[in-house]
Amino acid sequence: MPSTEPAKPVLRPYLAAARGFASGAQTPRQFLERSLELFELWEPRIGAFVCTNLPKARAAADASTERWRAGTPLSPIDGMPIGIKDIIETVDMPTQMGSPLFAGWRSEKDAASVRALRDAGALVLGKTVTTEFAASEPRGTRNPWNTAHTPGGSSSGSAAAVAVGVLSAALGTQVIGSTIRPASFCGCIGFKPSVNALNREGSHDYQSQSCTGILGASLEDVWQIAHEIVTRVGGDAGTPGLQGPESLPPAAKPRRLAVLETAGWDSASVAAKQQLNECVMRLKFAGIEIRTRTNDDTVAALETDLLNAAELSHRCNAFETRWFLRSMRERDSDALSRAMLDRARRYEDMTLADHRADLKERARLRSLYNELAADCDACITLAAPSGAPEGLSFTGNPEFAVPASLLGVPALSLPLFEVYDMPLGLQVIGFFDRDAEAFAIANWLMASLKGGR
Amino acid sequence: MPSTEPAKPVLRPYLAAARGFASGAQTPRQFLERSLELFELWEPRIGAFVCTNLPKARAAADASTERWRAGTPLSPIDGMPIGIKDIIETVDMPTQMGSPLFAGWRSEKDAASVRALRDAGALVLGKTVTTEFAASEPRGTRNPWNTAHTPGGSSSGSAAAVAVGVLSAALGTQVIGSTIRPASFCGCIGFKPSVNALNREGSHDYQSQSCTGILGASLEDVWQIAHEIVTRVGGDAGTPGLQGPESLPPAAKPRRLAVLETAGWDSASVAAKQQLNECVMRLKFAGIEIRTRTNDDTVAALETDLLNAAELSHRCNAFETRWFLRSMRERDSDALSRAMLDRARRYEDMTLADHRADLKERARLRSLYNELAADCDACITLAAPSGAPEGLSFTGNPEFAVPASLLGVPALSLPLFEVYDMPLGLQVIGFFDRDAEAFAIANWLMASLKGGR
Repeated sequence: MPSTEPAKPVLRPYLAAARGFASGAQTPRQFLERSLELFELWEPRIGAFVCTNLPKARAAADASTERWRAGTPLSPIDGMPIGIKDIIETVDMPTQMGSPLFAGWRSEKDAASVRALRDAGALVLGKTVTTEFAASEPRGTRNPWNTAHTPGGSSSGSAAAVAVGVLSAALGTQVIGSTIRPASFCGCIGFKPSVNALNREGSHDYQSQSCTGILGASLEDVWQIAHEIVTRVGGDAGTPGLQGPESLPPAAKPRRLAVLETAGWDSASVAAKQQLNECVMRLKFAGIEIRTRTNDDTVAALETDLLNAAELSHRCNAFETRWFLRSMRERDSDALSRAMLDRARRYEDMTLADHRADLKERARLRSLYNELAADCDACITLAAPSGAPEGLSFTGNPEFAVPASLLGVPALSLPLFEVYDMPLGLQVIGFFDRDAEAFAIANWLMASLKGGR
Repeated sequence: MPSTEPAKPVLRPYLAAARGFASGAQTPRQFLERSLELFELWEPRIGAFVCTNLPKARAAADASTERWRAGTPLSPIDGMPIGIKDIIETVDMPTQMGSPLFAGWRSEKDAASVRALRDAGALVLGKTVTTEFAASEPRGTRNPWNTAHTPGGSSSGSAAAVAVGVLSAALGTQVIGSTIRPASFCGCIGFKPSVNALNREGSHDYQSQSCTGILGASLEDVWQIAHEIVTRVGGDAGTPGLQGPESLPPAAKPRRLAVLETAGWDSASVAAKQQLNECVMRLKFAGIEIRTRTNDDTVAALETDLLNAAELSHRCNAFETRWFLRSMRERDSDALSRAMLDRARRYEDMTLADHRADLKERARLRSLYNELAADCDACITLAAPSGAPEGLSFTGNPEFAVPASLLGVPALSLPLFEVYDMPLGLQVIGFFDRDAEAFAIANWLMASLKGGR
């Protein structure tokens, strides 16, 4: 359909636009109307949404317009069009989890994060497509850069809708690679916070290393969303929640970065490796010291131990969700994908003792990783092995995203690379509870490297 | 109705009865049928259940009978009639949370703990009455010892149904006093584990100090239930879960116990204090060293700091559930009790900084309490200020139960006292992650003190 082919996807940051709201040069309602035009244009091609509530969004945009006019916005994101991954509860829309077992199911409440964002004035346009129970089975969303390619998963719809500017930001989740990977494939910012840093209550991901992630059009928008959530509802119950300033941390040039290869390196395309290598050269040229497995013993030890990161993650997650899969299988095993049934069978025999041993090993790796913090400001690597692969039956290799998930540390995918006309993210991996520093470095990297793309 | 007055409530331990199952002297189906007779007799008077699934329970009892006959029970609790507090999800029954806002609402899945108990062969007879959202507003359950008196709350139905032998055990929850208090008032065993020790996924209590509690007919039954849960689904995701042996830890005589007064002491009845004091005398006589605020500086410091335990708990809980109450208030504020609305208003202005300070103070108290562990085997106190008070509009003073909730440590209510024909519990409070030791001491106390009641 070349004649109806929309233009290239373009990100639409909200905070930048909101600078015109106070003067009345633009209004949240106008911003939303452009979102809805883009929705009309793109949605039939990419299938990013499960359902929408457009009349409510329009009414909320009018209320927001009034508040900005009166100089009393509820927060800097007042009026921002956002989407919610359909694994996270919303009081006004079903939460279907990418599974026929929850077709039309309603939680009758908002998740903590959703409630916080509404209280901050954000407009919830709709629920975005997730893979089956936020795992691997895709549910039809297409990559806006090339609709024959996967958008990545499991936060497929969130990434695709942000990439085309329908949304300025959307909530996702990540327990393996579900925020960083689709952000990389669709060319938006992806942020997976430190574990427990954003309250997950009402999000149907039951694993200890799972996080509520944010996909967004700009670093500024993403940080603000995270801040508005934590201010109102904190981190997971009993934890202090995301630490950091009230708006995007200013750019900070790192002194020393570690470059990780991870288990993904062997699967990475030549072109992707080349882009990372060129980036590293530029950083060296800018005077940043680079640590790698060849010049740093801690990095080398970590690289070796992280080869097992995916399997260890899968085992931790499997024990923590086995009860749920049993319940679903008993309801109707035909309603589960083969991938889900295989997963349930594969870890059926794990014991509590096995799980305790896995948690101990994870804690050991976390502590080893933390040794790097004494010496390095952050780690960088690819966010995915290459651009989004062709085909809609597989959401892509998550290996580059796994380490930050397992380690419980913050990670960002920055849309700085491109491979054969498909976007690819540079991944910044920070240290536990130091999400703000990761943003400050990401901010510097975005400003310094963007020209080179 | 004196002519239809049932006999006194009698506990019906299951594991003791199950010793006859292998020989065929008794069967799980027979055990269940007696439960159902008691249900017919008592339920109209005490209103312990929200809903039941009796045909399914009967079919499951027959299957269990077959397994015991074949020598292949799924676990020692195979066939045990249990109830689930209606704040915890069940796939075959609604989860209504004691609120009209969730009338008929279905989670479409089992909570982790429920799934574990079904996999262990337990029969879920029904959902038991909870106060509104497991907080303070009662929902009509009556105390079987005197139906003009409260059964306590919030696990009201679980305690009442266990007390009369309809159930051998039931799940409850506790964030303030919701397991220990009703257990004390109804005269059954109550167990609140170490925080995070039993997986709470699918239980609608969103607070960091909340726990899934167990109300049961015997220590043996209660420990077994806890063990069967943790073996299959662990503790809260990412934690090692309840530690201890495969069956009830053998009785162990403590060397040294601390007697706590707590903020509840001033409200305790003369008769209740007298019972505790007599108990302490007997323990001394048995050679157990007793520490109190008058002979131990750590106990004295703790008593002083714990005077604020209830308010600090309420503040922690309020921040962690505020998003939920906002969501409910927006749905229909008329459907919330005045107590709930007052609570929502009272903590409306708390900031994240306030909450972080509260969490820090709680951590300080936990660490102070843990100093006692070097010197004492456990603490004892009353489980409530006296027997259940008259009236159904108030679930009673929770102050004796608050410290263990705030401190995140295991607590047991043992039905060893009686005040004016109403039961009253002796409370044993243990140390974090040492639930098995608390049971061993409770086991010894039950055996040694029972004759004195």
